[in-house]
Amino acid sequence: MVEKSKKTVNNTEKRETLKEDTDAKSELINLGKKVLNDIYSGNSPKIELYVRGLSNVKYDKESKTLQLGDKTAQRFFFNVGHSKKFLQTLEVAAICKTLLDVNKHASLRDVFYMAKRTIPGTKINIVDEQKESDKAIEDLEIITGFSRENLNVNANKMGSVAGKVIIEDSGDTIDWSKLGSGGWSIPSNVENIKFKKVDAKYVIYMEKAAVWERLHEDRFWEKQNCIIMSSQGQTTRGIRRLLQRLNNEHNLPILVLTDGDIYGFYIYSVIKFGSISLAHMAGEMAIPDVKFLGVTMDDIIKYDLKRHFIKLTDQDRARIKQMQNYDWFVKHKEWQRQFKMMKEFDAKVEIQSLSSKGISFISEKYLPEKIKNKEWLD
Amino acid sequence: MVEKSKKTVNNTEKRETLKEDTDAKSELINLGKKVLNDIYSGNSPKIELYVRGLSNVKYDKESKTLQLGDKTAQRFFFNVGHSKKFLQTLEVAAICKTLLDVNKHASLRDVFYMAKRTIPGTKINIVDEQKESDKAIEDLEIITGFSRENLNVNANKMGSVAGKVIIEDSGDTIDWSKLGSGGWSIPSNVENIKFKKVDAKYVIYMEKAAVWERLHEDRFWEKQNCIIMSSQGQTTRGIRRLLQRLNNEHNLPILVLTDGDIYGFYIYSVIKFGSISLAHMAGEMAIPDVKFLGVTMDDIIKYDLKRHFIKLTDQDRARIKQMQNYDWFVKHKEWQRQFKMMKEFDAKVEIQSLSSKGISFISEKYLPEKIKNKEWLD
Repeated sequence: MVEKSKKTVNNTEKRETLKEDTDAKSELINLGKKVLNDIYSGNSPKIELYVRGLSNVKYDKESKTLQLGDKTAQRFFFNVGHSKKFLQTLEVAAICKTLLDVNKHASLRDVFYMAKRTIPGTKINIVDEQKESDKAIEDLEIITGFSRENLNVNANKMGSVAGKVIIEDSGDTIDWSKLGSGGWSIPSNVENIKFKKVDAKYVIYMEKAAVWERLHEDRFWEKQNCIIMSSQGQTTRGIRRLLQRLNNEHNLPILVLTDGDIYGFYIYSVIKFGSISLAHMAGEMAIPDVKFLGVTMDDIIKYDLKRHFIKLTDQDRARIKQMQNYDWFVKHKEWQRQFKMMKEFDAKVEIQSLSSKGISFISEKYLPEKIKNKEWLD
Repeated sequence: MVEKSKKTVNNTEKRETLKEDTDAKSELINLGKKVLNDIYSGNSPKIELYVRGLSNVKYDKESKTLQLGDKTAQRFFFNVGHSKKFLQTLEVAAICKTLLDVNKHASLRDVFYMAKRTIPGTKINIVDEQKESDKAIEDLEIITGFSRENLNVNANKMGSVAGKVIIEDSGDTIDWSKLGSGGWSIPSNVENIKFKKVDAKYVIYMEKAAVWERLHEDRFWEKQNCIIMSSQGQTTRGIRRLLQRLNNEHNLPILVLTDGDIYGFYIYSVIKFGSISLAHMAGEMAIPDVKFLGVTMDDIIKYDLKRHFIKLTDQDRARIKQMQNYDWFVKHKEWQRQFKMMKEFDAKVEIQSLSSKGISFISEKYLPEKIKNKEWLD
């Protein structure tokens, strides 16, 4: 690895250094101790944390992910503008500590209801809306250097997986190749899963559950020796972490398969580079070497899909313009070419339009051909 | 069973009689043969089917489900108003026959793309929009008496399940009690699943995946000897059929657990009575003895949830009014009381507001107490 000056050491590294000799609970206890120290020494209790938001997010060329910068801010208890947020942060920290103590997990919505109580002697609630407790959790991710998942807070559960993989989870040994037509249901939190055996050359993550069912019925994962994973709709944090762990711990390439539209490109962008709101978690979430397998604008020509064109909406066009100018795409010739072609077509295609060529065209021709020829975008 | 006159024999019974000595493929072949016979005998080829839509849907008091009435319609090839629909029906029938021949499943979207081809010698597509092929599939459900799933056409995959159940599916033996924190991912089509062992007293179906994860982490299914099942959002046909099969084949009561709002009540209504658009499938989908476990308006008082009230929107109020007047609720005192209370509160609550009482309050107190006291709505 190239040597970096102190100044460019990024947040991920800070956290990773931290993590080696601590855990999430100790970090929460540390936070409490610091506040107590302030109180005992007669200072206004304060919390220090990195500033989030666009002003402190940068595209890190070396790690090729979005990263938080070095700007920090202090939050004081004796400051009318800060005190409510201060209280919210400590309240949610206490909730997370309890969750870790009793070894249970809660959803973001649960944490909101747990924090939503009236401050004794007042008519003021600690939180009134979920976005307040959500923000406190994000702050705690920055303060402790541990992800929400490590603080035992989960988001939505979604998605299925199949492949020649054996895992251990919650005391069970689970073989992803022996779960019938359904597959394993991906939990919202995959931090405690242990991989016992991973016999696969790569992972295909697809946007659509119906495509997953097609590939699964055709036993694509068996024939191609890969893992197939999908959600229906959003790429949850559980899925992103599962992809990242397979990539990091087992060196599996991750291939992304979506509709041939700007939202498909965006799904890829988030998996690869991270997102602005989660820049502080890039180290746990982003997968810089993920590839975009399709549907590309070139596929439309090669596989004769023009007759399945769906005209772009104004929203699509605006989104293309926005993504073209993202730091991480702006100098990327191949991606700029894709954006340009999409604009020229003024159209998008759905991945299921490949079904017009035959029900198993996708698993028997499209995917094997593309993968064999390494026809993907980086 | 009470004897019924010919006139009131409903569609479900017709289909069930049919099913005993036929299968979906034979019915598709029959359809083709009838059309061929018309052609050979010089008649305008025709398809006969029950009329769908509100004018031919009635609430059947005996079966307690929505049912199609007896009105039939004929669709002629030599009728300018009918010929396109006629063609679409036959095209989609041919696609379904192919799927059954090769023993593969397709999604509704796949079927659309397979049917979307230009009629030779014209510039006219057989279908231009998915709703056309979707309608043709619904027609084929009525014509053949078999569900879409039996025609090998699936919708979206969603949801997870856990419990002391062993199934066989696609050659695999799957134990729903040994699948870690994720559970089994429910496929879109559960027609071919075989239950090998079902050791459970009832099933709880919940609207929210986060609640499922709570109950699963607490091993609620083990402690209470039940099955827990959830989706995230819509109750897919796969889930409804799985619930129905567990109810029919294993006599398991089904308990529905949702937010305390009008959409939660609607989820229950659809599982129990069926829906207007799927009245022809009531026999395969509706579960007349399903119970609504919560959150009821009485729970709000009993469990002191008023401080988590969320004000109703105009849309909520309109929906309450609509549901109050449904045939199957209009004379139901207990449900009318619920609607009335909701209107008086002018508020709804989320199920996760129970978390304000403690992270496992739902699994340790709320549910065991309600189930023990049979506090549910029928």
